[in-house]
Amino acid sequence: MISELDLIRRIKDKAAPADASLVKGIGDDCAVFANSCAETLSLVTTDTLVEGVHFDLTWHPPELLGRKAVSVNVSDIAAMGGTPRFALLSLAAPVSFGLETLDCFLQGFMGALADYRVTLIGGDTVRSDQGLVLSVTVLGEVDKQQVVYRSGARPGDQIWVSGFLGQAAAGLEICRQRQAALHQACPELVAAHLDPLPEMALGPALARSGLVTAMIDMSDGLASDLAHVCAESGVGAVVRAKELPVSETTRQTALTLGLDPLRLAIAGGEDYRLLFTAAPAASERIQELAGHAAYGQLFKVGEIVDGRGVVLSADGQNKRIDFQGYDHFGVG
Amino acid sequence: MISELDLIRRIKDKAAPADASLVKGIGDDCAVFANSCAETLSLVTTDTLVEGVHFDLTWHPPELLGRKAVSVNVSDIAAMGGTPRFALLSLAAPVSFGLETLDCFLQGFMGALADYRVTLIGGDTVRSDQGLVLSVTVLGEVDKQQVVYRSGARPGDQIWVSGFLGQAAAGLEICRQRQAALHQACPELVAAHLDPLPEMALGPALARSGLVTAMIDMSDGLASDLAHVCAESGVGAVVRAKELPVSETTRQTALTLGLDPLRLAIAGGEDYRLLFTAAPAASERIQELAGHAAYGQLFKVGEIVDGRGVVLSADGQNKRIDFQGYDHFGVG
Repeated sequence: MISELDLIRRIKDKAAPADASLVKGIGDDCAVFANSCAETLSLVTTDTLVEGVHFDLTWHPPELLGRKAVSVNVSDIAAMGGTPRFALLSLAAPVSFGLETLDCFLQGFMGALADYRVTLIGGDTVRSDQGLVLSVTVLGEVDKQQVVYRSGARPGDQIWVSGFLGQAAAGLEICRQRQAALHQACPELVAAHLDPLPEMALGPALARSGLVTAMIDMSDGLASDLAHVCAESGVGAVVRAKELPVSETTRQTALTLGLDPLRLAIAGGEDYRLLFTAAPAASERIQELAGHAAYGQLFKVGEIVDGRGVVLSADGQNKRIDFQGYDHFGVG
Repeated sequence: MISELDLIRRIKDKAAPADASLVKGIGDDCAVFANSCAETLSLVTTDTLVEGVHFDLTWHPPELLGRKAVSVNVSDIAAMGGTPRFALLSLAAPVSFGLETLDCFLQGFMGALADYRVTLIGGDTVRSDQGLVLSVTVLGEVDKQQVVYRSGARPGDQIWVSGFLGQAAAGLEICRQRQAALHQACPELVAAHLDPLPEMALGPALARSGLVTAMIDMSDGLASDLAHVCAESGVGAVVRAKELPVSETTRQTALTLGLDPLRLAIAGGEDYRLLFTAAPAASERIQELAGHAAYGQLFKVGEIVDGRGVVLSADGQNKRIDFQGYDHFGVG
C-alpha cells in the first residue's frame, strides 16, 4: 500500500514545470501565484466525480478518467470565454486503490493538464472508506471585455449548439449494457463518454467575437442547461426537435439499445458541447468564424422567447422540458 | 428527498452578500472575480473531509462540522500570513442525508464564512452512494512582502508553537470512547476536535512582523508538520519533550484514557495551532507581539539544526520522530 507521503511525491514528480506566474506550487500550506491584473478577471470552477455515480472503473480506463476529471472543469472555463491556468486535485481513494491504477490515472490527468497548458498547484490526498472521489478545481482568467455569462440571452436570440447531442449518453449506455459489438463499431460515442473534449478554442473565440449573448457548457443535457440559461437570463426558449443535431450513429445506436434518440439529445448529459445564444443578425458571422477556424459544426436549434422555461416543439406539439433528466440527487 | 436544484437554491439563499470584488458568484459555469493587484499574491488551498475517516456524524454535530470544513482551510491561509476571500464547497451527499442535517451543516458552514469574512462563490453538489464527502477550496491573498513559506527555516532558529498540543487528539478520543463524564468535564478538548479555531489573526500578525522564517499550521501533528518544514527548508530539528505545551487537562485525560500525553502532543493531529521558526534574537519581540495582541500563549519547543529530520529529546535520549502518526492512507 502506498503512503500519503509517497502519493504526494508521486503527484509532485509528475507535475509539469511551473507557469511563470506561479510562486509556490505543491508543498506548502497554500499554492501562491501572481495575478495578471487590470484587464483580466479570475475564474474558478470545481467538479466532483464520485465512483459509482459519475464513473464506473469496470469500464472506465483510469487514464481516461484522469483526462475527464480535467476536461469537465476546463469546459466550464471555456464556457465563460476564458483560459485555464491552474488546477488542484483532491483525491479520496480507498486503500485498495492500486499503484498501477493510480499511475494510469495520474498519467491521464497530467496529460490533459499539459494539453490544456494548466499547471497542477495543489490539492489533497485522503483515504476513502468507500469508493474513489475526485474533486478538481480549475482557476483561469478571462479578458474583462470578453467574459460571457449565462444571463445575457434576450428574446429573439437564436440558440446554437457546437456539435452533436446525445453522443456521451449513447456511449454511456453502450458501456453500461456491455455492448461489445457497438463498443467497437461506435468508438466516437464511447469516447464522448470516456474522454470528452472541451471546447477550449471555440469558447474563447466566440467570446472574442462579441457576438454571443449567453453561453454554457452542456454537462447536464440540453434541456437542463438551456433551462439554466433561461432562468439566469429571465427568458424562455423554444427548441425545435427536428433541428437537434443527432448523428446517424447515435440514432442507430439508440434504436439498437431500445432508447429514444430525441430523449438522448435533450436529456443526455455530458456532451460538453457549448450552448450559446446570439442575435439573428450575427448568424452569418458565427458560421464564418466556425468554418474558418475548423471548430467543428455549429447548429441552430431554436429561439429565445419572452416568458419562462424551455419548450420543445415536435410534430406541431409543444412540451415543457425544463431540467429534463437533471438531478444528481433525484435520480437513483 | 431534496433535489439538486433545491439544494443549490438553499445554499445560494444562505450565502452572504458578495464581496465588492466578486463579479459573479454562484450560478454560472465559473465564479468570476477581480484581482487586487500589484502588491498582493493569490493563495489557494483545498481540504477534503470524508465521513468515517475524518469525521463521524454520530458525535459530530453537523453545524460544527460545517464550521470545521471552513476553519481547516482558513488555517492554511493564515499559515502563509494571508487573508481568506472566497470559498467553494463540493458536497457529495448520500440520498439519505436529511434536510435538517443539511440545514444545520449549512448554518455552521455559512456562519464560519461570515466570521472569517469569506464569500461562498461556487462549488458542486453531487450524490454519493456512500458517506458524506466535503471538499472545500478557499482562495485568499497576501502582501507580496509578507508571505511566509515552510521553506525558510535556518539552523539556529527557535521553533515555536502557538498553543497547547494534543487537545484535539484527546477530544477525539473522548468522543470515540463515548466518555460522557470527560465530555462534560473537558469541553475545551472536545471543542478542539469538533470546532477548531484557526489562527486568523496571529498568522498575518507574525507575517507582518517580518520576524518569522517559516510557518505551517499543525493539521497532522507536531512531528509530521515540523518534518514538512524541515524537508522544505533542507534542515533538521530538535524538539525538547519537557518544553512541549500539554495542558493539565490533556495530561489527566490522557492518563484516564490510557494514552501517552507525550504521544498526543507529538503525533496528535488537528490542533491547527501554528508552528513557526525565528532567529533567537527575535524571541523577545515575538513574545511582546503575542502579549500585546492577546493572541494566546506562544511556546518555544526546540531548535532548527543542520542535517535532516526531526529528533525528540527526552530524558537525555534522542529519538527520530519524522512524520510520526502522519499517514491518512497508512493508518487503518
